[in-house]
Amino acid sequence: MSGPRRARDFGLACGALPAGPRNSICDVPGVRVGHRTLNQGELRTGVTAIVPHDGNLYRDKPVAAVHVLNGFGKSAGLVQVEELGVIETPILLTNTLSVGTCCTALVRQAIARNPDIGRETATVNPVVFECNDGYLNDIQALAVTEDDAQAALAGASSDCTVGAVGAGCGMSTFGFKGGVGTSSRRLDLDGRDFHLGVLVLSNFGRAGDLRLPDGTRASPEMADTEPAAEKGSIIIVVATDIPLSDRQLKRVIRRSGVGLARLGSFWGHGSGDIALGFTTANRLSHDEKTALVTIDILNENRIDLLFEAMADATQEAVLDALAAAGPMTGRAGHHRPGLAEVLTHLPSTKA
Amino acid sequence: MSGPRRARDFGLACGALPAGPRNSICDVPGVRVGHRTLNQGELRTGVTAIVPHDGNLYRDKPVAAVHVLNGFGKSAGLVQVEELGVIETPILLTNTLSVGTCCTALVRQAIARNPDIGRETATVNPVVFECNDGYLNDIQALAVTEDDAQAALAGASSDCTVGAVGAGCGMSTFGFKGGVGTSSRRLDLDGRDFHLGVLVLSNFGRAGDLRLPDGTRASPEMADTEPAAEKGSIIIVVATDIPLSDRQLKRVIRRSGVGLARLGSFWGHGSGDIALGFTTANRLSHDEKTALVTIDILNENRIDLLFEAMADATQEAVLDALAAAGPMTGRAGHHRPGLAEVLTHLPSTKA
Amino acid sequence: MSGPRRARDFGLACGALPAGPRNSICDVPGVRVGHRTLNQGELRTGVTAIVPHDGNLYRDKPVAAVHVLNGFGKSAGLVQVEELGVIETPILLTNTLSVGTCCTALVRQAIARNPDIGRETATVNPVVFECNDGYLNDIQALAVTEDDAQAALAGASSDCTVGAVGAGCGMSTFGFKGGVGTSSRRLDLDGRDFHLGVLVLSNFGRAGDLRLPDGTRASPEMADTEPAAEKGSIIIVVATDIPLSDRQLKRVIRRSGVGLARLGSFWGHGSGDIALGFTTANRLSHDEKTALVTIDILNENRIDLLFEAMADATQEAVLDALAAAGPMTGRAGHHRPGLAEVLTHLPSTKA
Amino acid sequence: MSGPRRARDFGLACGALPAGPRNSICDVPGVRVGHRTLNQGELRTGVTAIVPHDGNLYRDKPVAAVHVLNGFGKSAGLVQVEELGVIETPILLTNTLSVGTCCTALVRQAIARNPDIGRETATVNPVVFECNDGYLNDIQALAVTEDDAQAALAGASSDCTVGAVGAGCGMSTFGFKGGVGTSSRRLDLDGRDFHLGVLVLSNFGRAGDLRLPDGTRASPEMADTEPAAEKGSIIIVVATDIPLSDRQLKRVIRRSGVGLARLGSFWGHGSGDIALGFTTANRLSHDEKTALVTIDILNENRIDLLFEAMADATQEAVLDALAAAGPMTGRAGHHRPGLAEVLTHLPSTKA
Repeated sequence: MSGPRRARDFGLACGALPAGPRNSICDVPGVRVGHRTLNQGELRTGVTAIVPHDGNLYRDKPVAAVHVLNGFGKSAGLVQVEELGVIETPILLTNTLSVGTCCTALVRQAIARNPDIGRETATVNPVVFECNDGYLNDIQALAVTEDDAQAALAGASSDCTVGAVGAGCGMSTFGFKGGVGTSSRRLDLDGRDFHLGVLVLSNFGRAGDLRLPDGTRASPEMADTEPAAEKGSIIIVVATDIPLSDRQLKRVIRRSGVGLARLGSFWGHGSGDIALGFTTANRLSHDEKTALVTIDILNENRIDLLFEAMADATQEAVLDALAAAGPMTGRAGHHRPGLAEVLTHLPSTKA
Repeated sequence: MSGPRRARDFGLACGALPAGPRNSICDVPGVRVGHRTLNQGELRTGVTAIVPHDGNLYRDKPVAAVHVLNGFGKSAGLVQVEELGVIETPILLTNTLSVGTCCTALVRQAIARNPDIGRETATVNPVVFECNDGYLNDIQALAVTEDDAQAALAGASSDCTVGAVGAGCGMSTFGFKGGVGTSSRRLDLDGRDFHLGVLVLSNFGRAGDLRLPDGTRASPEMADTEPAAEKGSIIIVVATDIPLSDRQLKRVIRRSGVGLARLGSFWGHGSGDIALGFTTANRLSHDEKTALVTIDILNENRIDLLFEAMADATQEAVLDALAAAGPMTGRAGHHRPGLAEVLTHLPSTKA
Repeated sequence: MSGPRRARDFGLACGALPAGPRNSICDVPGVRVGHRTLNQGELRTGVTAIVPHDGNLYRDKPVAAVHVLNGFGKSAGLVQVEELGVIETPILLTNTLSVGTCCTALVRQAIARNPDIGRETATVNPVVFECNDGYLNDIQALAVTEDDAQAALAGASSDCTVGAVGAGCGMSTFGFKGGVGTSSRRLDLDGRDFHLGVLVLSNFGRAGDLRLPDGTRASPEMADTEPAAEKGSIIIVVATDIPLSDRQLKRVIRRSGVGLARLGSFWGHGSGDIALGFTTANRLSHDEKTALVTIDILNENRIDLLFEAMADATQEAVLDALAAAGPMTGRAGHHRPGLAEVLTHLPSTKA
Repeated sequence: MSGPRRARDFGLACGALPAGPRNSICDVPGVRVGHRTLNQGELRTGVTAIVPHDGNLYRDKPVAAVHVLNGFGKSAGLVQVEELGVIETPILLTNTLSVGTCCTALVRQAIARNPDIGRETATVNPVVFECNDGYLNDIQALAVTEDDAQAALAGASSDCTVGAVGAGCGMSTFGFKGGVGTSSRRLDLDGRDFHLGVLVLSNFGRAGDLRLPDGTRASPEMADTEPAAEKGSIIIVVATDIPLSDRQLKRVIRRSGVGLARLGSFWGHGSGDIALGFTTANRLSHDEKTALVTIDILNENRIDLLFEAMADATQEAVLDALAAAGPMTGRAGHHRPGLAEVLTHLPSTKA
């Protein structure tokens, strides 16, 4: 991550817990992230892929959970995650109107790797999340193709690029240019190191509402170009290597809402705010033969540590997206300033 | 509906309430149904469209609710229905792996009719439901196109064809050939006539478990070709012209599970059993200007009448699908017998 | 259980799976049931206690889940079970207006055994369920005392009495005398024997709607004394020694609704139909010190076996309550006939 | 409210919307609040009653909703509110172990006013919420009686006293003395004035985590007397005279979590954080005879205004409780300092 500046380059750290070595969702071993960015003409959009582990996800399903903070959103795949507590594909992020195309791409990838799907075994549940980048992007063009989705998947690595990349290309946050951000926390449980990592697709918040960690407000100078309502959305993807049950995971990711509230959001009506979490430490085999399976779960008396990490890392991941995404002009001359420029004028965040 | 035989042609009526004039979801004024059937080579699949009213659905959103009986399914659009209590597109039914394509088709139709989508106003939430027809259909072919979806939408009429048509082409039920079925009930409230109509995409149930309304069992002779597990799925779409709140609607459609249980199902693990209901009597304007809106809702003391209608009509709609869908041979020579042939040998159902 | 006749004494077995040795919730090792019956004057009420295991429940909490089929009910303790997936007290059943008193009794018992409650450690979540026995019982008398609750708890044994006992004293079902019933199923998983047991407090169903397992209807001759609406309620308590996660348990107990539907119910508006399940095989220590805990869960591909057992045992437990509860006259001369008398006149159930 | 000082006396106003004339839940016309305080010996506890309107609540049920932020709590009555979207009794707040007694008190009051309960008509659903005051109060004494609950109900007036009163007597917040607080916002919809009012029973937050509106932290000097975990709970009762559906109300009260997060909470594991809201503008008649009922609901495009009011008023109501509740020593010499003393030393809040 030599390229864009990060939240901490501006002094924007959140909370008291230590970050992981890369302060990234990829601090959870095995997690990879890839982007496909479409930034040409009136297009400011793309696809971001989060791959939970290196194996065959359909065969070896991570325990997972979803939590809907505000359901004004069009994400796909949540019903089955809710029922079964697992995911079985990578996670794709894209613009709202490209969810269908990304679903099909995931289906095709799963069939290619598992030729028994829909024949000798069940079908597959693609998990795709979205935000509306229509302010900067010509979203009506439905420009994202299945090939774009495959490119994001193929390019996934443990080096998580942030800012106006992938699905984050055309996103906005609190009147500034938003995008993809990430953060992680290192957690000590009985002397062992674990990580909880967050990646956000950040596209929410009213101009003028943003609060920095020290309580100061930061607002874009061109706030008058911004619609008054809290539109957009935010997607929060959470990875951990702590063994959790799906119920425990759901409790943890729910605290993403705390991070958003600290930033100044009240989870606006028009915002599809959705969190998905998975643990790489508990995987269920599609082909399990024995009747009973042994897993580890967390002693729930310790879960406050994860709640705190979740709130802090969500808050910081949004600031990370804001810090990394520069100013951008897009469709119809619409413009979003970068937070970085404002930050360099604030006493508390001089970089 | 001159073509296929209906459940009542075999004496398979359910419950004591009167059916509507067509015994169809189209007994609810304004509701239309269309099909696009792909029945060639190894393909036994298609698309079914339910159009709630003749206006612009995005501008004039019917109050709606969803209920997940068993969430082993990949349907799209439920999150927003749950949050906002409305739908804003027609409802498409298709095979599991074609959900993405049908979402994109609905998006494109909505944009064509509402050029402000994703520009001056919000995006759009396509509602697509699915079952797995992989036993009779080459589901891996991903054969359904956006054009197929548009054809189903364009062909929608108040004449609801049933059986192995549209999305029902390749479906199976209790080891028999399944498909699309419908039924309705006429309800008297304070001297006014209302209707509650059900359309099912029926693809669930273990061979041997089917119970007819009189309690007798009906099982296919070639049950040994059937996998033992209750796989497949059932989608239950419910329309009414009774004014209901979204919460009331959710309570009503939940009783679809009663109908399934009466038929012999225990809502199997591998079955995505999902109900969606809408009322044409309460529509919310996308462009509403006044702060308060007046609607009618049901005096909830009367809701048992709707519960009973819901259970009865669901049960009968499945039998309707079974009665109408003839025997079919599909992919890899897989075969499903028709229920009709068995029924003609049962004393209680001689047609 | 020498006393009352059971469902199987009338040929009323449900489903194909074998019952446990006592066909009772107490076939799950360690589960005990106790009753306190108030049957004098205008009182027809009481308390039933289900004790999940012989240890200190507050210290050693069984994994548990609740499912609300229809929430017209006043049961206590569900919020915390939903959040944490455990119970920490015995389960009490009583009449609707005595829930508060039974809560206090459970609190007092928990404090007596755990003097650190509300001082050095957390408080305690009493779990109390209820049905409305106001037709036969003077429910306004609030006759149940804390001592009655303690008596039910103290009398708990592995011999589960059924019929018009304990909380079941004044209950009605499908126009007949209802009460407490039980049933169990023996399940083979990888060559090991497990049990799933159900106890119902049965107080639901419209007169005339009851269906016996062979499909015949059974209705009380004095049906005209019955209000037309489906009022009352049913509580379904489920025990198993199969290791399950709380999510798996929730999926299992949800199938209690299948059993009710087979009996002729459509889960009426006025009926509080609630299921609670627990597994004795997974217990979480209140005082756990290590950060991670190892548990077994079910390979979910096998869960259909439990779904079927759940549906069958619920159906039979209600018939068991009906078979065991004789005719009764109560408050204001209100009368409920016993099903047994009707059954002896039906060809299929001659005992 | 001549007595205790309020949050605004210390400059602790939250957000940009105007408060109502009393900055109290009683700014919603008809809403009354009463307290019964038990402050003697080792007792620091009590009962607080919120009465939604002056009529017969059982006959004339306000539309209502609940939202569970974190379900480590023992509140009663939520199941039915969730199912039916109404309340039918006043709301009582008390300590955790007195919920049962307060339920019985509400039952008895309802019967006294409605002699047909449990005889000619249904039973009644008492709504009781709780926090654990065991740090300052001898909660094991179960000191609250039915008479105490009746006294709180009888004393209800439109003058809402705040601080260490009623159920708030023994509560703690962020290591300080907590209790009852209130706040309201005036909202303009199409030129008409409406109010949204909040009353909290505040007993949550870790010492050291409290954030004032300007971002500064406030922590008690004797923080070492405080257990490290976020225990306790917070109950948020919301009243409005804006016509809302139960779903809309649920969306609104969910934003109470935003207010808590702004204060520094991450909704800790051991905290039972629950919100209940009702609207006096929509009431459903228990004895309704016509099949359809006309109500007003909000144009949901305007709901952000209510979300913002909800977040602001929750935040301020907690600060109000902290400002009003002085220092207190209770059971076993346990002590909580008052926030007021700390505030007078902070530059931003000099009173």
